[in-house]
Amino acid sequence: MGLKKKVSIAVVRRLPRYYRYLADLLKLDITRVSSKELSVSMGITASQIRQDLNCFGGFGQQGYGYNVALLYNEIGNILGFNNDYQTIIIGAGNMGQALANYTNFEKRGYKLVSVFDVAPNLVGKKIKGVEIRHMDQLEEFIKNNKVDIAMLCVPYDHTPDVAERVARLGVAGLWNFSPMDLKIPYDVVVENVHLSDSLMVLGYRLNDKLKNEKQKKEKLI
Amino acid sequence: MGLKKKVSIAVVRRLPRYYRYLADLLKLDITRVSSKELSVSMGITASQIRQDLNCFGGFGQQGYGYNVALLYNEIGNILGFNNDYQTIIIGAGNMGQALANYTNFEKRGYKLVSVFDVAPNLVGKKIKGVEIRHMDQLEEFIKNNKVDIAMLCVPYDHTPDVAERVARLGVAGLWNFSPMDLKIPYDVVVENVHLSDSLMVLGYRLNDKLKNEKQKKEKLI
Repeated sequence: MGLKKKVSIAVVRRLPRYYRYLADLLKLDITRVSSKELSVSMGITASQIRQDLNCFGGFGQQGYGYNVALLYNEIGNILGFNNDYQTIIIGAGNMGQALANYTNFEKRGYKLVSVFDVAPNLVGKKIKGVEIRHMDQLEEFIKNNKVDIAMLCVPYDHTPDVAERVARLGVAGLWNFSPMDLKIPYDVVVENVHLSDSLMVLGYRLNDKLKNEKQKKEKLI
Repeated sequence: MGLKKKVSIAVVRRLPRYYRYLADLLKLDITRVSSKELSVSMGITASQIRQDLNCFGGFGQQGYGYNVALLYNEIGNILGFNNDYQTIIIGAGNMGQALANYTNFEKRGYKLVSVFDVAPNLVGKKIKGVEIRHMDQLEEFIKNNKVDIAMLCVPYDHTPDVAERVARLGVAGLWNFSPMDLKIPYDVVVENVHLSDSLMVLGYRLNDKLKNEKQKKEKLI
């Protein structure tokens, strides 16, 4: 079941949702599911679902649907949960500490090996058993340890510099929490988290709901 | 420039990106931009961009492109930045405190009016000048104050209960940070933030990059 072709990033971005949904089905001891059932529960059209899963060679059989456990494991493989990626967090403020406390990441193949900060009241302490080191030790640590992903939780203005510093040392993946689309002149994979984007979408949908309710009320008068 | 038709959620989810990108152009004193230029910088096809912006009545002129300031303001209006939404944070752990410290939210029309927790070492303290109240005061506070959005940063198992509690009191928008697709039997707008989805996408892209590099090396041998 190798990849048939280059998978679009839009499809890739939907895979974690499939994965989460299939995990829920497994918990309920549901062993197979049709694209139609997936569609109703996930709010994606059945044809979109079939197309998405076809990108990966397809795991369904007509008239039978998808084997939940098989599909779950395959999507896990595709997303690379058996990768054993080692991660560091840079910036041990609230966001950095929140990430360090996410136990889910480790379950999914992302191991936190160090945290870095400059604050004297943080350096030397531990979060979840992982030491907070001073930023001065960053270069040495990365040279002596396998670090695949750096999670950047530093103040906005420092983000590009810190990103370049780790990319220069060969860290191949950056997970950026500063509200900017980070662009640096290195061949690294950058995933930017824009929390406020999600809040704006919530605001839009709320607006829409309130507007509709107002219109309904006006019609009744 | 009213809405022409129901806008799909996929388009809405792209609007914050347009907004951020236009803000960058404004900072550079760029006054107009074509869909082609937007396309190159944003990695979305020009035809997709024209389609997206057409949903809102279109702000472009053929041969001229888009007026950056006008488009920026209109998207801001669409996203509801002049809404004056009042928000509360439930759960003052690391994630809750990280959200409270996001100054961007306030600039965009989301005012934090209270934080709630149960921990004795947190209740009574202030974050950014906003008081942390005990969860026992939640009902009373919401009855006496306009609360539009609750940001849920409570432990996983408590999330559905807390969500129902605020929804029952009429809070219309929930921003959920527990790794679940929250479903409750109330007519509320729920936006779930799945941080690990973004990490999984990073993992997939990193995998892809490493695989390509390996293949290139093998070809050279």
